[in-house]
Amino acid sequence: MNLRLGRRRGQSNSRDAILEAARHQFAEHGYDGASLRSIAAAAGVDAALVVHFFGSKAKLLTAAVEWPFDPDVAIERVLETGGQHAGEALTRLFLATWDELGTHNPIITLLQSAPTTPEAAALTREFMSKRLLEPLIDRLGSDQPDLRADLVAAQLIGLGLTRYILRLQPLADTDAAIVTACVAPTIQRYLTGDIHPSFRARSS
Amino acid sequence: MNLRLGRRRGQSNSRDAILEAARHQFAEHGYDGASLRSIAAAAGVDAALVVHFFGSKAKLLTAAVEWPFDPDVAIERVLETGGQHAGEALTRLFLATWDELGTHNPIITLLQSAPTTPEAAALTREFMSKRLLEPLIDRLGSDQPDLRADLVAAQLIGLGLTRYILRLQPLADTDAAIVTACVAPTIQRYLTGDIHPSFRARSS
Repeated sequence: MNLRLGRRRGQSNSRDAILEAARHQFAEHGYDGASLRSIAAAAGVDAALVVHFFGSKAKLLTAAVEWPFDPDVAIERVLETGGQHAGEALTRLFLATWDELGTHNPIITLLQSAPTTPEAAALTREFMSKRLLEPLIDRLGSDQPDLRADLVAAQLIGLGLTRYILRLQPLADTDAAIVTACVAPTIQRYLTGDIHPSFRARSS
Repeated sequence: MNLRLGRRRGQSNSRDAILEAARHQFAEHGYDGASLRSIAAAAGVDAALVVHFFGSKAKLLTAAVEWPFDPDVAIERVLETGGQHAGEALTRLFLATWDELGTHNPIITLLQSAPTTPEAAALTREFMSKRLLEPLIDRLGSDQPDLRADLVAAQLIGLGLTRYILRLQPLADTDAAIVTACVAPTIQRYLTGDIHPSFRARSS
């Protein structure tokens, strides 16, 4: 008798075990490489139970993504440094998070699954733009918070991919303090500067 | 008799058919979703022939990647605009290329395969950094061309992913001229500006 398949295990324990297994399998094998079957096996449950709880792999992804920090806490921490240092504080926070998580970063799973899984784009937008960046930019009092949020996301996600996933050299091995100094002015302009100066100059 | 499997087909025709099928399968199903078997089937050849020609899926990827423009031509075109408009010209070229290719962009296949396939990172670095950005930055006469090249790659790859793959809104539907105006000053600073001003100020 396989105790791990026992019915006595509580439903919430099984659910948590599936979520934990899904996070690990997605991080280890990518979204396409992980299957409901392999996730079920790692959680010690039947694949039918995974379908029963979550319905599909895309829905399991939505449930399994754990963001690496609380956006409300992050916003306060960035604002504490004062508006003119927000770009530096946000860049530093982002680099510290990636340094800590390595490839077990949910954004990587989301990017890998994005071409085939619309939920991935929705999740990224929900966290990066709606919960973190737009509220932060609102608090900074800038115009066009939605476009600014996307520009910040574009730079930070691109930095993460090239430094930690593609591992472009020398960027991957450059001290985080130097990378912060390089990228912070970009983030600062997207947060509080004039975001399309040449376009305005031309239209006027 | 299946004519597509006929031995009379020349080796170079089979090889080209495999490369063409690989490009299509990688673009359509992602690197992990495409198999040597499915690529062989699409090319109308036996999977053993794919292995014979290319050895492995990673090596087939390396052979199949077709870059969307000639880097030498791109460098001349960017330099023609003058050094102070290089950021704008490069951003515009990049956006025009993504607009044209959509999801059939080799950089997407490379990013998807990067976590499991070291060849993907090597290819990206080879094209973006070594053949396009470092020579361009050398011609512009800037210091640290290798770090600058990685910073430009980080911003342009992040822009491409958020605009075309994750389709963050409003960035995805913003006119390319406005996006260029937003991002060009960033690229210009990475190409020719002072890239880590605050770090220098602190160290001195």
